[in-house]
Amino acid sequence: MIQKIVIVGGVAGGASTAARLRRLNENYEIIMFEKGEYISFANCGLPYYIGGTIMDRSRLIVQTVEAMSARFNIDIRILSEVIQIDTANQSVTVKNLRTNESYHETYDILVLSPGANPLKPPISGIEEATNLFTLRNIPDTDAIKNYINTNKPKRAVVVGGGFIGLEMTENLHACGIYVTIVEMANQVMAPLDYEMACIVHDHLLDKNVDLILEDGVKSFSNNGRKVTLKSGREIDTEMIILSIGVQPETKIAKDAGLELNARNAIIVDSSMKTSDPHIYAVGDAVEVKDYINSNSTLIPLAWPANRQGRIVADNIAGRIANYPGTLGSSVAKVFDLTVAATGNNEKTLNAVGIDYRVLHIHPGSHAAYYPGAFPISLKLIFTAKEGKILGAQGVGFEGVEKRIDVIAAAIKGKLSVFDLPDLELCYAPPYSSAKDPVNMAGYVATNIIEGLVDTIQWHEVDDIIRDGGLVLDVREPFEADLGTVENAVNIPLGQLRGRLNELPKDKVIYVYCQVGLRGYVACRILTQLGYMCKNIDGGYKTYALVKG
Amino acid sequence: MIQKIVIVGGVAGGASTAARLRRLNENYEIIMFEKGEYISFANCGLPYYIGGTIMDRSRLIVQTVEAMSARFNIDIRILSEVIQIDTANQSVTVKNLRTNESYHETYDILVLSPGANPLKPPISGIEEATNLFTLRNIPDTDAIKNYINTNKPKRAVVVGGGFIGLEMTENLHACGIYVTIVEMANQVMAPLDYEMACIVHDHLLDKNVDLILEDGVKSFSNNGRKVTLKSGREIDTEMIILSIGVQPETKIAKDAGLELNARNAIIVDSSMKTSDPHIYAVGDAVEVKDYINSNSTLIPLAWPANRQGRIVADNIAGRIANYPGTLGSSVAKVFDLTVAATGNNEKTLNAVGIDYRVLHIHPGSHAAYYPGAFPISLKLIFTAKEGKILGAQGVGFEGVEKRIDVIAAAIKGKLSVFDLPDLELCYAPPYSSAKDPVNMAGYVATNIIEGLVDTIQWHEVDDIIRDGGLVLDVREPFEADLGTVENAVNIPLGQLRGRLNELPKDKVIYVYCQVGLRGYVACRILTQLGYMCKNIDGGYKTYALVKG
Ligand SMILES: Cc1cc2nc3c(=O)[nH]c(=O)nc-3n(C[C@H](O)[C@H](O)[C@H](O)COP(=O)(O)OP(=O)(O)OC[C@H]3O[C@@H](n4cnc5c(N)ncnc54)[C@H](O)[C@@H]3O)c2cc1C
Ligand SMILES: Cc1cc2nc3c(=O)[nH]c(=O)nc-3n(C[C@H](O)[C@H](O)[C@H](O)COP(=O)(O)OP(=O)(O)OC[C@H]3O[C@@H](n4cnc5c(N)ncnc54)[C@H](O)[C@@H]3O)c2cc1C
Ligand SMILES: CC(C)(COP(=O)(O)OP(=O)(O)OC[C@H]1O[C@@H](n2cnc3c(N)ncnc32)[C@H](O)[C@@H]1OP(=O)(O)O)[C@@H](O)C(=O)NCCC(=O)NCCS
Ligand SMILES: CC(C)(COP(=O)(O)OP(=O)(O)OC[C@H]1O[C@@H](n2cnc3c(N)ncnc32)[C@H](O)[C@@H]1OP(=O)(O)O)[C@@H](O)C(=O)NCCC(=O)NCCS
Repeated sequence: MIQKIVIVGGVAGGASTAARLRRLNENYEIIMFEKGEYISFANCGLPYYIGGTIMDRSRLIVQTVEAMSARFNIDIRILSEVIQIDTANQSVTVKNLRTNESYHETYDILVLSPGANPLKPPISGIEEATNLFTLRNIPDTDAIKNYINTNKPKRAVVVGGGFIGLEMTENLHACGIYVTIVEMANQVMAPLDYEMACIVHDHLLDKNVDLILEDGVKSFSNNGRKVTLKSGREIDTEMIILSIGVQPETKIAKDAGLELNARNAIIVDSSMKTSDPHIYAVGDAVEVKDYINSNSTLIPLAWPANRQGRIVADNIAGRIANYPGTLGSSVAKVFDLTVAATGNNEKTLNAVGIDYRVLHIHPGSHAAYYPGAFPISLKLIFTAKEGKILGAQGVGFEGVEKRIDVIAAAIKGKLSVFDLPDLELCYAPPYSSAKDPVNMAGYVATNIIEGLVDTIQWHEVDDIIRDGGLVLDVREPFEADLGTVENAVNIPLGQLRGRLNELPKDKVIYVYCQVGLRGYVACRILTQLGYMCKNIDGGYKTYALVKG
Repeated sequence: MIQKIVIVGGVAGGASTAARLRRLNENYEIIMFEKGEYISFANCGLPYYIGGTIMDRSRLIVQTVEAMSARFNIDIRILSEVIQIDTANQSVTVKNLRTNESYHETYDILVLSPGANPLKPPISGIEEATNLFTLRNIPDTDAIKNYINTNKPKRAVVVGGGFIGLEMTENLHACGIYVTIVEMANQVMAPLDYEMACIVHDHLLDKNVDLILEDGVKSFSNNGRKVTLKSGREIDTEMIILSIGVQPETKIAKDAGLELNARNAIIVDSSMKTSDPHIYAVGDAVEVKDYINSNSTLIPLAWPANRQGRIVADNIAGRIANYPGTLGSSVAKVFDLTVAATGNNEKTLNAVGIDYRVLHIHPGSHAAYYPGAFPISLKLIFTAKEGKILGAQGVGFEGVEKRIDVIAAAIKGKLSVFDLPDLELCYAPPYSSAKDPVNMAGYVATNIIEGLVDTIQWHEVDDIIRDGGLVLDVREPFEADLGTVENAVNIPLGQLRGRLNELPKDKVIYVYCQVGLRGYVACRILTQLGYMCKNIDGGYKTYALVKG
């Protein structure tokens, strides 16, 4: 009979497991080990405390040891690192970091939620860089904040343009620091595809952030005062944030012989059980199944950690609960922008070899006639025939994550793009349009699948121009002042039926407007009248995203 | 073969039908009749133009006759009222309101989207009330705006507390007018249940709106300068907005012998076809199937009108499209509050005799530690066993309609409350919590259905007190200063395990905290230790909503 449960890690996954376990069973002995000084802290809030948005440090601590012990009758031991697991004897070795003494603690069930550590590769000069920081926990946060308060740096380099890097950029910027982002890929924010990330790039430049793409750090020198890039470029800086990703903190799991994957993530089954029948693992330390493509992957986010923690508690207590895989729904605030995504992006789908179709739309966040509406750039990825939803990405100022959440719910409901027009979403002018952007994405996808219109993507345009293709701009002439596709012929949509004689019937006409809608209407007219045409998906706006 | 399509009504349903029809078929002859001067206007924006939020009147006109004719090659005839339908000869009689001349126009297919008229019952003195307005279209809007500009009224009475009444209240208030709302029911905003509407009542009072419930207008006198209520109360006023609902504008349909229901709504099948095989009807004028309870109902909203318009166009063009019924997802801004709902409320379910369970939660709109989070009061209604989602209501300041949209999508995906915890929604501190409010609602519902906790509702509490029931307050003592349930015993949750001897085992203990969470945790402790207990759902906060 299970009586004693030992948990390693006292934050998102660990504390969630402990709390639910106690709610399910008043009699369990529950011991939670945390090597740090704090449990249940708000990892995700740390950058905002550094920037001053969160002003009160104590707000970062969601639950104190005292309060959680009292509420849940859990034996919480902080500054206690589990340094070894003895699977044969079902016991762990714990090092008390105050006294440096070690002791054993047995378990009936062991739950691992050790999280992941910031990557810190052996770049030349990294150990001597006294101004280099990573950010995972409260001590890291204090160190960064103290450094800023004491040294009042004017320049910082953020290495890595993922969400933590961008959040740190925003918050350093809020401290009056000029930030250079160095990112090895050709884009920031990996969940987005390139053209969507370009919106973020523009916004960063607008905010006077120095963005260096496709370049990596070669070395640090002068105790971190100089950063030399692979390109040879040198940057003087007063501080460095290293945010190039995380790696599962699984040394004890590995030493204990638990099955790990090549990236040292713990392998678990759908009940979150490891290769040892008495050990579960959750959170950033585990490999998960990608909900869309079913491959194994690592998705270190708070929702999965919390969800998995509760699932493990249920399973321990004899309830059956399975984790269906991770969609990877995510959102980040990047200055004034909201960037959100769910499911797979093109990069992932290409890597795993799944065929797909793509659309881009740019509908208003709410009714255009009600003040404060801003376009949302929304990308939807789906299978060509069945219209299965594979992923979605949104970038904009308002209402972005709402649409991604709705699509994430639709995916979990196994709805296809054909069902999106039927989602009956709340409408009043301050909130949406009578056809919500999600409905609109469904309409546009349906039209593509049903063959009402054929589309090409932004990245195909330049080849078409080079090959002398015929490109038709159906916008009003004044709009062309904002930029056009090279050599495009302009016939405004309203004049199209009257000027058909200007167009050939023996050549594909590549049509575009500003966002795709009028291009689509033009294509419908042309197609029915016997012309061959394709709409440039997402219009000039999408094409221009990557032109900067 | 279908060649000529005549459409009656040129706004939400009618214009949507016309536009889609043309996209599907370049050869149709499409004639759209509109008796007013404007097509495609923003009905939903009208109150905001009156209040000045929308400053430019031309923004209310989404499409002009010229632009829409040019883009879609549609024969649009404004100031043209269809006064008769001759179903036998497939022709309509049209009155040109400029010339007062009438003529016939034949059709292969007729589409009716005539909308609905504001109700204007024969209340004594109504015809003489020169300061009484209803609001449906642009001329109505101009009349109200001119009246305000000319007469600078200081006081207004809004009769009817539905969404148009409340929007007008807010916008008159923005014009510096002191508003009295007179509402016959015991609450405003019919999509909400009473306790949820109470949040709106409080907010209206905070905004210095005079709210009179459970009273109706008996008569108007002195040309509308005095309003006498059924209670005898008299109100002096300078203007009156009558917004007590709408009725289908279906006289021509009735005269033509189309099948109507008792409320004069046109009866259509799932393809939106009327009882006449050559006539379709959409929008506010038709009866729809309630998506939740399958009964017939009227839901005059913009989303259904737009959706149905497109479905009709598809059916005419030989594509098969069905309307699955209306969920009634709706949202309104009421001053600083957002009020949203989807599916059925308790009132409806009681009326149609469907059993249900209810929960209330009050989670933050986003992580508590990130500034600007406000509680969302979220109510979920579901079936007791299968956990089928029947409806949801939300009231709060931020992120309200997002959660209702996600639940609406879940309903369309046929997800149950058991699936809500698995909705993987976007999380970062400015947007949500690692367990989103929708996840949380799923957790709470699951716990109720699985018997982890038994709950009672706010409206059962007073009877329990009267019958001498034992009520246990597990909040901290300082919280009790904010108000308590009468005669409640206080044992803070953190002390519960140590003070069990103060509680009897032979009596049901009704537990509450502030929002329900700690009450639930207390119930889990007590239940497992052999006490009988029930959690007061939604905590003191829900109970107190109706106490004002
Ligand atoms: C700056 C920052 C911002 C973030 N923002 C977001 C966001 O906006 N949205 C989002 O979804 N996610 C965000 N995350 C990620 C999110 O915080 C993690 O996915 C989540 O906390 C993972 O939970 P976990 O329980 O696996 O690990 P953690 O929460 O990291 O907890 C693991 C704990 O285990 C302890 N531990 C490890 N090994 C041992 C041992 N041997 N003995 C004892 N204790 C041990 C560690 O000290 C640590 O406290 C952010 C993370 C960071 C660092
Ligand atoms: C002030 C206001 C605010 C609103 N706010 C919202 C909101 O926030 N959210 C929401 O979902 N809904 C809202 N609505 C409701 C929404 O506008 C309607 O549900 C929608 O417009 C219905 O579309 P329809 O095509 O059926 O009717 P309408 O849009 O009313 O169009 C019908 C048209 O038909 C014309 N017509 C009628 N009979 C004839 C005839 N015999 N011959 C020629 N023409 C004729 C009428 O003049 C009218 O212009 C609001 C409505 C109003 C009035
Ligand atoms: C603080 C922490 C220990 C809380 O764990 P928890 O108790 O499971 O979570 P919550 O406080 O949100 O409470 C959720 C529970 O209360 C219940 N609940 C919530 N609101 C309720 C209400 N109004 N009425 C009744 N029950 C309610 C839920 O059903 C759930 O119980 P269940 O799991 O038994 O179904 C854990 O979330 C944590 O450590 N968080 C901080 C770390 C972290 O997540 N970091 C990453 C993000 S920054
Ligand atoms: C203005 C009005 C005539 C527009 O009708 P519409 O042309 O069907 O609607 P939209 O302009 O939103 O365009 C939608 C069409 O463009 C397509 N589309 C939208 N964005 C697109 C894009 N970026 N790329 C390609 N196609 C796009 C959609 O697929 C849809 O076409 P489909 O129906 O053939 O699939 C009609 O909505 C109207 O009268 N509105 C005002 C009245 C009203 O609704 N009042 C109530 C609310 S205030």
